[in-house]
Amino acid sequence: MQAVNTGKHLILASASPRRRELLAACCLDVEVCPADIDETRRAEESPVELVRRLAEEKAHAAYAALDRSLDVPLLAADTIVWDDAGSVLGKPVDKDDARRMLSLLSGATHHVSTGVCLMAPAGGELREVSFVETTDVRFFELSSAEIAAYVASGEPMDKAGSYGIQGLGRALVRDISGDYANVVGLPVSRVLRELDQLCEGGDFLLSALRGGGA
Amino acid sequence: MQAVNTGKHLILASASPRRRELLAACCLDVEVCPADIDETRRAEESPVELVRRLAEEKAHAAYAALDRSLDVPLLAADTIVWDDAGSVLGKPVDKDDARRMLSLLSGATHHVSTGVCLMAPAGGELREVSFVETTDVRFFELSSAEIAAYVASGEPMDKAGSYGIQGLGRALVRDISGDYANVVGLPVSRVLRELDQLCEGGDFLLSALRGGGA
Repeated sequence: MQAVNTGKHLILASASPRRRELLAACCLDVEVCPADIDETRRAEESPVELVRRLAEEKAHAAYAALDRSLDVPLLAADTIVWDDAGSVLGKPVDKDDARRMLSLLSGATHHVSTGVCLMAPAGGELREVSFVETTDVRFFELSSAEIAAYVASGEPMDKAGSYGIQGLGRALVRDISGDYANVVGLPVSRVLRELDQLCEGGDFLLSALRGGGA
Repeated sequence: MQAVNTGKHLILASASPRRRELLAACCLDVEVCPADIDETRRAEESPVELVRRLAEEKAHAAYAALDRSLDVPLLAADTIVWDDAGSVLGKPVDKDDARRMLSLLSGATHHVSTGVCLMAPAGGELREVSFVETTDVRFFELSSAEIAAYVASGEPMDKAGSYGIQGLGRALVRDISGDYANVVGLPVSRVLRELDQLCEGGDFLLSALRGGGA
């Protein structure tokens, strides 16, 4: 899908191609400024607290690294997969780790939370808002042959939780409860509304619904 | 996404490009044989009964029109959008109709049901199975400006219920409960499992998870 140049621009503090595609599908031209931060979880921090803090720290790091004042909104996001025990499932370190995570998710419901932090200029000030969107995802029961086939595809290796819902991993998922794009990596329909709240006369949502153009 | 030729073939009794894409993403090579049937709803027929019957009639019509015996599975499907009053929302007849439907869906939860009928050769016999998958979809509250912007995009005009969740219409949807691909037009993860049940040694699911190949 190609973004129409509408004058709707955004700085994206994330290197994720999936986030860029989701924003382009909402008619947003994105300038990518990835931010490197320490993603270590703090003791006693819940998964939702963690992902909100990571989004905020990414936004602040990207803003600090900007070589100009902020003239368009800046968006930072981080997505985590976690289970009812509060364990966070990151990207697998190797194929054994991917098999371990997929066995854990088999036949069960887990949670996918995306933390989002938005910054925008407003007069001489800088406004900021952050939020967390969570979607529940239920997997089918998976046989070891099914897990082996999916791991052999190579798809799990760069994905939090060892699967991608928008790829071959769609066949693992029985159903979801919540926003679908949030599992892909960014709750875009909520992001558009939060951008409109943050930026007076932004009309991000209207532009996205119209398919670009003024 | 390009389908790998894996020897997994299917006859699709539907002209929907979205269904073809979903099956291709599951590594299925599809031969399209659309079937024309009368889609009139019968008195006292529930939405779920209607969509199951339409899928079965489409499958039978496509099978009858085949110029050879069935050597690979045949899949027919139909998707409907309906509300709690049991009203079915078809494709809009014009822009006013699209606006009417989107106003009806605004701020509310509706249902998307896909009826699927599968036929497959088994020895000298023909096996058949049909099922209905339903996903609940909740819309954000939509202003008349938002509805007007979306109708102006032209996207609603060929879509049941006047929206496409995989297009600009994603921005209308607050959350879903159920299978996402089912709202796009085909519950592929369930279809793969039903195909494996119907066809001994089919390995449709393993092929899809592996990304094609033997």
